[in-house]
Amino acid sequence: MTYCVGMMLERGLVLMSDTRTNSGVDNISTFRKMHHWEISGERIISVMTAGNLATTQAVISQLEERNKAPSQRSNSLLEAETMFQVATIVGDLLRETISSRAEDNGPRAAAGTFSATIIVAGQIAGMEPRLFLIYPEGNFIEASFDTPFFQIGETKYGRPILLRGYQPDMSFEAAVKLMTVSFDSTLKANLSVGLPLDLLVIERDCFTPLHERRIEAGDPYLQAVSEGWGEALRQALDALPDYRMEARAEAVSG
Amino acid sequence: MTYCVGMMLERGLVLMSDTRTNSGVDNISTFRKMHHWEISGERIISVMTAGNLATTQAVISQLEERNKAPSQRSNSLLEAETMFQVATIVGDLLRETISSRAEDNGPRAAAGTFSATIIVAGQIAGMEPRLFLIYPEGNFIEASFDTPFFQIGETKYGRPILLRGYQPDMSFEAAVKLMTVSFDSTLKANLSVGLPLDLLVIERDCFTPLHERRIEAGDPYLQAVSEGWGEALRQALDALPDYRMEARAEAVSG
Repeated sequence: MTYCVGMMLERGLVLMSDTRTNSGVDNISTFRKMHHWEISGERIISVMTAGNLATTQAVISQLEERNKAPSQRSNSLLEAETMFQVATIVGDLLRETISSRAEDNGPRAAAGTFSATIIVAGQIAGMEPRLFLIYPEGNFIEASFDTPFFQIGETKYGRPILLRGYQPDMSFEAAVKLMTVSFDSTLKANLSVGLPLDLLVIERDCFTPLHERRIEAGDPYLQAVSEGWGEALRQALDALPDYRMEARAEAVSG
Repeated sequence: MTYCVGMMLERGLVLMSDTRTNSGVDNISTFRKMHHWEISGERIISVMTAGNLATTQAVISQLEERNKAPSQRSNSLLEAETMFQVATIVGDLLRETISSRAEDNGPRAAAGTFSATIIVAGQIAGMEPRLFLIYPEGNFIEASFDTPFFQIGETKYGRPILLRGYQPDMSFEAAVKLMTVSFDSTLKANLSVGLPLDLLVIERDCFTPLHERRIEAGDPYLQAVSEGWGEALRQALDALPDYRMEARAEAVSG
């Protein structure tokens, strides 16, 4: 499994991903699932992947044309005119990669074996920042005011806090804090999501990462959030009205 | 889907379940998933079910011998000598119900079509309160100091808060509050879990429910928790140290 979140804020985009891949519980590895490309001052495009690792690596390799000699490579994402075109290119590559692998293996392969999902985020100069969720079928949806963030992979554990904590005008620092809590909750509950985490902050109209880092196990900020969150939640629970077993009708005033 | 939680505290047992069943999104109904039987002063036994509704209703009906004339019925759970025997009886009935239905339908039925999972909780006089999770295969596990609560159904959204908020010595009122938050988070995220909720509180060595009720939509306590939790979480997030994009090493002191 995997856990990645892409979030659209008024001031830009924040992306976070884990790095664990596993094939069974006795075969785990660390792989980067977040990639980005930029033309300074003109565009920045980031991609996060979840699903079959061979599929997602093949998509990234094809985007970078690694099948060609280094001097002959070009990245079509850096030539697309709009973020919509970028999403279309990634979606087509994803669908073709999955279907060609499935055809090669015929009916022996279980449905969904080669499946993957991708989040695409970025901005091209003169246009708005955009955030897309791309399905294995190659089609995609775009984030909006109503649905301002996308999750892929092991999404359920970390979703309630995102639903409750997200605000479109929050600072980048607050958004990173919120995502760290969401990831910490998921890390605590599911072995298939694992450290380190990759973090990328893209400020609106600033076509290079504002902030980029890898959060390793033992990172002091992650530890502070993880240790502090249990206590903060207990205080949050305390702040709620107590349930009263006797006086049901008056429970709210308790 | 379904969401049920059974929790073991030092002072007794707390159980909560939703009531939604669905077969597709356009066919939803309300069914009780929590049942209990008691012999006043001697035993109280509660069962919560998740999975195929025909399977779980068949298990409950057979436990109550509804296939017999009312005068000839007896409930084997009320005659079992230990809670372990109770769990064994429920497990055997569950496995037999699933397998006979699967055999009748042969290979046309998809694997797992008739599957279900059951939580059994209760106490028999002279022995400890016990809490079991019963699998479709009929075998079961028991709650312990390390794993003091079981969830069945749509478990992921509501799990992080239970992991963080549970304490074995908490009051019944605090446990109900914690479970209400867990259910509210799940209700907000998943349409297949729905109101009303059933609540049962069993105090140790008190072989009748200490508290029992149905929490309907519009319940003032549920509303107070649901509305208060967003604000409480924002305060909890505020209480955590801020992330600093510049001074990484000093992030904790922020």
